[in-house]
Amino acid sequence: MGEFDLIARYFDRPVRRSPLGIGDDCALLQPAAGMQLAVTSDMLVEGRHFLSTVDPRRLGHKALAVNLSDLAACGARPLAFTLSLALPAVDQAWLAGFAQGLFALAGEHGCELVGGDTTRGPLCINITAFGEVPAGRALLRSGARPGDDLWVSGTLGDARLALEAFRGTIALPQAIFEAARLRMEQPQPRVALGQALLGIATSAIDISDGLLGDLGHILRRSGVGASVQAACAPGLLAATGAGLQLDETLLQELVLAGGDDYELAFTAPAAQRDDVTAAAARAGTAVTCIGSIAATPGLRVLDAAGLPLPRQFAGFDHFR
Amino acid sequence: MGEFDLIARYFDRPVRRSPLGIGDDCALLQPAAGMQLAVTSDMLVEGRHFLSTVDPRRLGHKALAVNLSDLAACGARPLAFTLSLALPAVDQAWLAGFAQGLFALAGEHGCELVGGDTTRGPLCINITAFGEVPAGRALLRSGARPGDDLWVSGTLGDARLALEAFRGTIALPQAIFEAARLRMEQPQPRVALGQALLGIATSAIDISDGLLGDLGHILRRSGVGASVQAACAPGLLAATGAGLQLDETLLQELVLAGGDDYELAFTAPAAQRDDVTAAAARAGTAVTCIGSIAATPGLRVLDAAGLPLPRQFAGFDHFR
Repeated sequence: MGEFDLIARYFDRPVRRSPLGIGDDCALLQPAAGMQLAVTSDMLVEGRHFLSTVDPRRLGHKALAVNLSDLAACGARPLAFTLSLALPAVDQAWLAGFAQGLFALAGEHGCELVGGDTTRGPLCINITAFGEVPAGRALLRSGARPGDDLWVSGTLGDARLALEAFRGTIALPQAIFEAARLRMEQPQPRVALGQALLGIATSAIDISDGLLGDLGHILRRSGVGASVQAACAPGLLAATGAGLQLDETLLQELVLAGGDDYELAFTAPAAQRDDVTAAAARAGTAVTCIGSIAATPGLRVLDAAGLPLPRQFAGFDHFR
Repeated sequence: MGEFDLIARYFDRPVRRSPLGIGDDCALLQPAAGMQLAVTSDMLVEGRHFLSTVDPRRLGHKALAVNLSDLAACGARPLAFTLSLALPAVDQAWLAGFAQGLFALAGEHGCELVGGDTTRGPLCINITAFGEVPAGRALLRSGARPGDDLWVSGTLGDARLALEAFRGTIALPQAIFEAARLRMEQPQPRVALGQALLGIATSAIDISDGLLGDLGHILRRSGVGASVQAACAPGLLAATGAGLQLDETLLQELVLAGGDDYELAFTAPAAQRDDVTAAAARAGTAVTCIGSIAATPGLRVLDAAGLPLPRQFAGFDHFR
């Protein structure tokens, strides 16, 4: 099977929202009047972002999900994406599974594949995704203000729990392992929540490298500090709710610095708590208030007595 | 050096034309009223698209050039791009060179880096580039009509000549090798020509996989055939002009099916020959009429007597 047959069989689908899709030198996009185009790009490398044994359907889902998560963090509505794929060889079963997972998620969000590239090489996937957001209203990292509440969506730490189980540093009951593995391999981008928070949240980011590390980006760009209640950690790990008992230090590490969560962390004025919970209800996504923004720089994780934990948490960095 | 320091040092430059650049979950683009956004994405893999020994400045140039070439083939004006980079390790001299070549070409075309991703992995570069084109006026592959002239820009085959010299299948005088190598490693995208041909050319494509293979895409999408004059081949190889003598069969192979040229092949009504040459003069790019479009399907390479050459030419395909 050649390059062009491969594209035709697995990836060339008619476009409905874009003026021109796959098959020319460029695709054409046309954002509606008054809209800006939000653009994000994520590269996934075998052995670093996913295990070589992962179900290709889950991988197809995840490759798009991590990009939709960035669109969500800006409050953008997904429109389209391009896919670049380096493949060591043409494995039709793998391609069919990958395409199935990819297009299932794309279809859920009305996000269409408009172009890309295929080549031979070590397995590497790059997706660039496009969304629309009303001009000047995108959620940015720079808008957090002292006194704002600090919120997170969904649950945190389960993806890292699964990674630790794969690494053999922890043993998990089968049901808990499978649930955590699903979390790691098939994250659900908070697309509806991001859009529901437009006009309510003052800042947002998606949590990919661990809550505290990503929160640090909001603090730096907003010129503020924050405190986070460590007591929220048990309630945020889904595995805890499913009955898993963990040492408190490990639990905090997973939830506060685990990585690969693809939840949203966001800030909103304390006076808008009801608006936040109403937006979350509309989006069908749970949210938890975990702390607050302060004028004093720095990120403080507080124990039940309100005292800073002495421990350091490290965000994920590909080159450290 | 960590991931965020690496981005800050080598890639984070202020944006002037885009509402938001590097540093948030998404970049924001806003095409002018009445414009469509042309989008293209190309992935370059070490050992496949470039040699591991290539000067990183030339590689930075080429990674963007191949995308600008796609924008050129649509007649789009470059606006912005994202860069995803998988690196085996942080090599600061390499990064500095790569960024220098990349931004030099970007600056020439007013095309700004607005986002992307960096990760560790086998060296792989993906750029997605964005350009503006008046709505409904983009040059497409589907517009060639019987009777149109068939044109190419610049010179063809020299990049492949350099590749063959690297492979050891041909020996070249040093000056000719260096010129051909520059062509292979640092192609010049025909951005000004593409825009100058808006409203004149009926179809266009950029030549990356070899003239005849890429021309085939125009013919299929336009539902037409074409004949190409083999006699044009010697005049299109720059090395011939520099005095290199080559066997006729090899010369035709290089020019008609060489690959990595990043010139434009385009069609235009025969009645608009003067418009084509005027547009080429405005763009400062030589163009050559090499054949014509016919209603009869198929691609015929004709000898000086007007008879079809019996030889087959194969376009480049990553999976054959």
